[in-house]
Amino acid sequence: MFSATALSAKCDGTSLPQNDPTPGAIVDLIERCQQAKEYSYNRYSNFRVGAALLCQDGTIYTGCNVENASYGLTICAERTAIFKAVSEGHRKFTAIAISSDVVHEFISPCGACRQVFVEFGVDWDVFMTKPDLTYKRMKTGELLPFCFAPESFEQHR
Amino acid sequence: MFSATALSAKCDGTSLPQNDPTPGAIVDLIERCQQAKEYSYNRYSNFRVGAALLCQDGTIYTGCNVENASYGLTICAERTAIFKAVSEGHRKFTAIAISSDVVHEFISPCGACRQVFVEFGVDWDVFMTKPDLTYKRMKTGELLPFCFAPESFEQHR
Amino acid sequence: MFSATALSAKCDGTSLPQNDPTPGAIVDLIERCQQAKEYSYNRYSNFRVGAALLCQDGTIYTGCNVENASYGLTICAERTAIFKAVSEGHRKFTAIAISSDVVHEFISPCGACRQVFVEFGVDWDVFMTKPDLTYKRMKTGELLPFCFAPESFEQHR
Amino acid sequence: MFSATALSAKCDGTSLPQNDPTPGAIVDLIERCQQAKEYSYNRYSNFRVGAALLCQDGTIYTGCNVENASYGLTICAERTAIFKAVSEGHRKFTAIAISSDVVHEFISPCGACRQVFVEFGVDWDVFMTKPDLTYKRMKTGELLPFCFAPESFEQHR
Ligand SMILES: [Zn+2]
Ligand SMILES: [Zn+2]
Ligand SMILES: [Zn+2]
Ligand SMILES: [Zn+2]
Repeated sequence: MFSATALSAKCDGTSLPQNDPTPGAIVDLIERCQQAKEYSYNRYSNFRVGAALLCQDGTIYTGCNVENASYGLTICAERTAIFKAVSEGHRKFTAIAISSDVVHEFISPCGACRQVFVEFGVDWDVFMTKPDLTYKRMKTGELLPFCFAPESFEQHR
Repeated sequence: MFSATALSAKCDGTSLPQNDPTPGAIVDLIERCQQAKEYSYNRYSNFRVGAALLCQDGTIYTGCNVENASYGLTICAERTAIFKAVSEGHRKFTAIAISSDVVHEFISPCGACRQVFVEFGVDWDVFMTKPDLTYKRMKTGELLPFCFAPESFEQHR
Repeated sequence: MFSATALSAKCDGTSLPQNDPTPGAIVDLIERCQQAKEYSYNRYSNFRVGAALLCQDGTIYTGCNVENASYGLTICAERTAIFKAVSEGHRKFTAIAISSDVVHEFISPCGACRQVFVEFGVDWDVFMTKPDLTYKRMKTGELLPFCFAPESFEQHR
Repeated sequence: MFSATALSAKCDGTSLPQNDPTPGAIVDLIERCQQAKEYSYNRYSNFRVGAALLCQDGTIYTGCNVENASYGLTICAERTAIFKAVSEGHRKFTAIAISSDVVHEFISPCGACRQVFVEFGVDWDVFMTKPDLTYKRMKTGELLPFCFAPESFEQHR
């Protein structure tokens, strides 16, 4: 229905042709995202989520969900990892892996996180995992087809 | 890559087989979403967005973006329309139409709005329009493939 | 520690000297906010919240909380009421009343809602109620001392 | 109008009697929050904000604002710092310092950030600074009087 290339052209011109994690990096990233659940602050949902973000320079940042009594000010694990990385000077990402304790389903990012993913490009990898370390892999742009990304916005203000 | 049916089975069992807007209803909805831009409170972006939401009983609710000095507390037109409808007792929707002043591109919902759409089902229509009233039409579930919707969540808490 | 006047000067120059609801309007508003809980979509918290917003022209808009599987995309009753009003052309408010089912405590707005209140002025009234219709009354600016409001922001970009 | 003690009793029973940063720690924290602006991703507002968070064990986490094309998915510097700390296992905080490039005004946290502050206690310090390193100091609970914090919520679900 859409191709990563077409999306890339439409949503974000900054994507690199070569930006694939190696098999070893994938295994490492998935293990790290499972560990990242440890610090989950899930006082209201009792639902633990972890994330591990691989920057293009090889640095990994982890994140967990941090909930709030107001519910609406809750943040997801994926965005925690991205905000951490950006606050340390990173804006070019290779992959993010996401974990939960749900054993029979690949944990999928919410729409808010997908929008934050495409802010930093539509062609990097998302690994949706299970606790047994199996995963489903998709591009950020595939998870948010016809996305509203930086270029669309700025062209027209 | 995915089918509306498969998504529907996965994300939300409440979808109805018959829930299509009539051609006349579509024309009306698109006109209403264009008018809805009028009240846009866009003090920081100067970007007007409008939305019109068709409930299954035929009622239409309109919305606009409402920005905030904090940026992060800004709300989109689409969510304004949905929150309005829910606060008046509606939870079953047929279609939403979205408008902006961008003349050469169909305005597309952000990921946060898509996540709020699928909270109320993955198989209702989204009309992304241009000011000339032309549109691109997709299902809510197509805009958020492999979504994290109510059923996934509640099954596993 | 601070005065409404000082805040008003600091945060928002648009406040009116005369903007008090009448005793009858207060009673009506508080009844309306209690009724507004009826449509609360609280699938995850089972916590009902209602709000009723009085515009300066006398129109009342009601709101309820609308939750989301992602938690972070949940909206509060108070913001629902404000976004509704703005989307219908209102930006000048006299008072908002908030209700929950908690019998022994006045329900108080979260910080996100308070920030949206001050976007529209620091000297209008907030009525925090109990189900028995008793209330605590404060100004929007008193609930968010030293606030980051539109004027602060725009002066310095 | 209210006392930190009363608030503490009302909003959060977990506060410690001894939790004051030393003068040296304050100077350090304020310098760190000024530096933290460096990585601000402010593509839409051109407004740089930094934060530095002091944990009770002496660790400091920095944050910056990370904006988004959708505006509503923008995160503030203060919350970035807190989410980082929580994701590394910290939940007990002593102080947060906030910086911007505004020379003649102490930068103040938005309501959303204040709500996230009180999730972790109402009696720790907020230092609102200017680029010349002068500051205004307040307790988290003073910035969000009569707050809706974890205890209020959980007592009544
Ligand atoms: Zn998310
Ligand atoms: Zn949106
Ligand atoms: Zn709120
Ligand atoms: Zn903030």
